[in-house]
Amino acid sequence: MTPATEIAETLRARLPEAAFRPLTPTYLEEPRGRFTGQGGVLVAPGSTAEVADVVRSCAAARVAVVPYGGGTGLVGGQIMAGGAAPVILSLERMRAIRAVSPGENVLIAEAGAILSDVQDAAEDAGRLFPLSLASEGSARIGGVLSTNAGGVNVLRYGNARDLCLGVEAVLPDGSVLNGLRRLRKDNTGYDLRHLLIGAEGTLGVITAAALRLFPRPAHIGAALMVVRDPQAALDLLSIAGAQIGEGVSAFELIHRMGLDFLSETLPEVRQPFAQKPEWMVLVDLGLGSQDPAEALEALFVAGQEAGLVSDGLIAQSQAQRQDFWVLREAIPAANRRIGSISSHDISLPLSELPGFIARGAPALARLGTFRINCFGHLGDGNLHYNVFPPKGQDRATFEPLRGQIKRCVHDLVHEMGGSVSAEHGIGRLKVEDLERYADPAKLATMRAVKDALDPVGIMNPGVMLRV
Amino acid sequence: MTPATEIAETLRARLPEAAFRPLTPTYLEEPRGRFTGQGGVLVAPGSTAEVADVVRSCAAARVAVVPYGGGTGLVGGQIMAGGAAPVILSLERMRAIRAVSPGENVLIAEAGAILSDVQDAAEDAGRLFPLSLASEGSARIGGVLSTNAGGVNVLRYGNARDLCLGVEAVLPDGSVLNGLRRLRKDNTGYDLRHLLIGAEGTLGVITAAALRLFPRPAHIGAALMVVRDPQAALDLLSIAGAQIGEGVSAFELIHRMGLDFLSETLPEVRQPFAQKPEWMVLVDLGLGSQDPAEALEALFVAGQEAGLVSDGLIAQSQAQRQDFWVLREAIPAANRRIGSISSHDISLPLSELPGFIARGAPALARLGTFRINCFGHLGDGNLHYNVFPPKGQDRATFEPLRGQIKRCVHDLVHEMGGSVSAEHGIGRLKVEDLERYADPAKLATMRAVKDALDPVGIMNPGVMLRV
Repeated sequence: MTPATEIAETLRARLPEAAFRPLTPTYLEEPRGRFTGQGGVLVAPGSTAEVADVVRSCAAARVAVVPYGGGTGLVGGQIMAGGAAPVILSLERMRAIRAVSPGENVLIAEAGAILSDVQDAAEDAGRLFPLSLASEGSARIGGVLSTNAGGVNVLRYGNARDLCLGVEAVLPDGSVLNGLRRLRKDNTGYDLRHLLIGAEGTLGVITAAALRLFPRPAHIGAALMVVRDPQAALDLLSIAGAQIGEGVSAFELIHRMGLDFLSETLPEVRQPFAQKPEWMVLVDLGLGSQDPAEALEALFVAGQEAGLVSDGLIAQSQAQRQDFWVLREAIPAANRRIGSISSHDISLPLSELPGFIARGAPALARLGTFRINCFGHLGDGNLHYNVFPPKGQDRATFEPLRGQIKRCVHDLVHEMGGSVSAEHGIGRLKVEDLERYADPAKLATMRAVKDALDPVGIMNPGVMLRV
Repeated sequence: MTPATEIAETLRARLPEAAFRPLTPTYLEEPRGRFTGQGGVLVAPGSTAEVADVVRSCAAARVAVVPYGGGTGLVGGQIMAGGAAPVILSLERMRAIRAVSPGENVLIAEAGAILSDVQDAAEDAGRLFPLSLASEGSARIGGVLSTNAGGVNVLRYGNARDLCLGVEAVLPDGSVLNGLRRLRKDNTGYDLRHLLIGAEGTLGVITAAALRLFPRPAHIGAALMVVRDPQAALDLLSIAGAQIGEGVSAFELIHRMGLDFLSETLPEVRQPFAQKPEWMVLVDLGLGSQDPAEALEALFVAGQEAGLVSDGLIAQSQAQRQDFWVLREAIPAANRRIGSISSHDISLPLSELPGFIARGAPALARLGTFRINCFGHLGDGNLHYNVFPPKGQDRATFEPLRGQIKRCVHDLVHEMGGSVSAEHGIGRLKVEDLERYADPAKLATMRAVKDALDPVGIMNPGVMLRV
């Protein structure tokens, strides 16, 4: 591969001045500090045609292209640390919301649009764009789709891919895939949209997308319910499905460790129960005509009668609902303050979740003494399973154990039919995990598809598949 | 390519006797009689390993493989009329439902399981498998997924692809893709599931699938509402979304022509209104705690107040709801009795639907005098737009116009951003349409993927892509 500097002049000749920005350290760092970029050429094209021009130039000169969205990815997909310096292709100037059609429940956004801006545009049109995640104030739609982001509303509305009707993308040869369909049904050929979504920029650059909107639920509400154990949480989820159907927007599991971490690092976050419960769930509803508090009351009663639920709080106001969510969203912040040795973004078949939680702790105990904070999107089988040093000890001491801890957790997840990357993707961080755990036929097929669509291998080299 | 007869002995030596069945005419015909198969060797493997064995043998000998499900496809995907005679690989013996997990809302079915058997198995477990279409008594899951079937509940639950968590498939080289994931979130590599779904057997043979189940709505109900015109129907749909949210399971548009055809050919089907309305919609709800009749009443009132709805009938019993659906489902039967010159399975962006309906009739009138029956899944933008001879005239007379009629309809659909195959797929019938209307970059990418995964071109040759 050729270093990007060699085509810097070509690019300068082809693109307007506005496309060139200083390559500040921001573009070479990622949230967890595991990867550091090595320089290269930063370009921020202003249109799909300009993106195509950049990619075509890079393909001709065999220069690597690293697509760059909001920089919030957690697996190093946006940072290329080795190899010939790449063109960093930032979508930050393509942030237009091209159209909002509330009648069609469709919004068309360019790849650089920030997720929260898309949410706001939908709200302004009286609609909901339900994708919601911690980094929504910086994450951009192109990155959100390229990583098939998840978040808290997947239970009800699906992952990013489920919210996308069509994509426009620049392919590795610089051709433009005009796929901005706004159709709910379209069976005309292979579904390339779903191939590009989740491909983490290795098969092309998404430049715009047609996104699904939804009616805004007329009434929203939330409750915290103390459950006996994870199995009880699952049983409660099943009752919620029967009683409330699709009205359940989120169903989050919270362990006592998360509450302890909050007391330790963010004491200003109000603890909802006098005594910290071992396990609780945050249930969030969005309903049409029914009163959420009534529905939550009925769920609470059913849960109590079934011996699943021992205590609970139903939000009596939107402010109180907000408090519940502040609590939930503060847990990752508390985790960062404590400092995990190893954190895992895993999913399991729902029925295997309680077994996994039961087996995980003793398996790790064989490696040492740790604190485990296990929380997450229970309704999706998605746990954030994070391992910390005992109180008062520094994580640096445990650094040598990190590989073993990760292996221990991932092996167990894999054995139980789960995924070692539920929502963050593979990036450059989990290439080895993919090689270890993926089905061989899947890996071989991925490689064949990559080689067919990007024969020179310019698109985000080293992501997902080893160079 | 080599004729299948040349490997008949090889296959006999490798597979048990039970895998061989007489090649009756059923396997060489399709519902509309447009394609006729030419013979070949019929095998019905009993396991995924046997499917892999067949495909491997065919790949080695360069013999074409035509995967065969329920034979209900409407675009000739299951019938190979030309070229060297293929191996017809029927999944009919692989009809096991391997597992049903109501707690996880997952069912694992082999590809040969009949759709209605899957629905029944879900119901026995207190769950709903929502995919529902006219041929559900014969269509098999493998075919349903390979064609990404739609049907009447897409509005609420999505297409077949949206109901599938994972697939097991035999790839064109005979390797087995073990992708029977039961996970709601899994971002580990390219989504090959979505590549195989809707590929109509050109990239491999789906042998089993993990399917999503849903809570059964506690209360179901339906209404027929007379609307001013298609735009009023869309506005009513929008109100329904705001009032009822995801509770709207189906929203079907019915034109007077369909009712006239029923009077003409199936007079025993009861007409709901004394005077046949020009346009009406069938609204179907599935709710948790709310009474559907009440919700439909509120929708009717809102529709009346907005000047959209002039008359209506709310089902007072399940029997009456059933009657409404009998009426809706009888329309395709009436169409068949009348005999269309050309029928079109199209979709449009929702906001373009009324414009398309307004422009379609005058465009066709330039070609001759026809009767148009336009009906379908309005909520999905999916119309069945069928063109018939005037009353008393024979369709054979109009056969020479068929190509022009199709072109006229499809050109208009394409111009308005729609799809010329909303739910039936491309098969062998619409290859030319795909070439004419598909984005060039999409076609080139499809060809590259096909060549990469099936370099010999044995999998369902002639489907989607020209041989």
